[in-house]
Amino acid sequence: MRRFGQIIGIDPLQVEKYKTCHAAVWPEVLKMIKACNISNYSIFFKDNLLFAYLEYIGDNFEADMAKMAAHPKTQEWWAIMELMQKPLSTRAEGEWWANMEEVFHLE
Amino acid sequence: MRRFGQIIGIDPLQVEKYKTCHAAVWPEVLKMIKACNISNYSIFFKDNLLFAYLEYIGDNFEADMAKMAAHPKTQEWWAIMELMQKPLSTRAEGEWWANMEEVFHLE
Repeated sequence: MRRFGQIIGIDPLQVEKYKTCHAAVWPEVLKMIKACNISNYSIFFKDNLLFAYLEYIGDNFEADMAKMAAHPKTQEWWAIMELMQKPLSTRAEGEWWANMEEVFHLE
Repeated sequence: MRRFGQIIGIDPLQVEKYKTCHAAVWPEVLKMIKACNISNYSIFFKDNLLFAYLEYIGDNFEADMAKMAAHPKTQEWWAIMELMQKPLSTRAEGEWWANMEEVFHLE
């Protein structure tokens, strides 16, 4: 299992819309997340920042991410979310949500 | 089980020291965390921010947190960590790490 922590900004004017969307994520999008071996996935909000925690339980992360990215309904969902998000300027090449470095873990 | 997402700043000059400390947390501190029913606890770093994700698996969170706060070795550890951390000005009364709001969860 691989753990991920990711961070992204959010437009302060879009926080309520973002929350409303995430209280009712499209079933096709949720199903694809599970099909791509992502588990125990949470998103937290404070001060115009979003933090995501997720666990990858498959054995080919790159292939699963490519599968998710190729899914039309997921692409449609992301297009709506991206309008509300403000990615960090310090994110790595190719990232939208920026990956964080795990500095501690206790099982 | 209750999930928590928490955020705090870190002094940019102290990042390496903070990482070194967290690669070798004192055994007494780790043992107390487990004894207080905290599980699957991770801390992530990026851009002078720390994000913590943890799961509380006990049935009296307030009592367990009071137990941890009363533990001398944990107090000693916290005193060292607090010198490196920069709590958010927007944190709630009584908080050090600021609790974030969970806006999404998928099991």
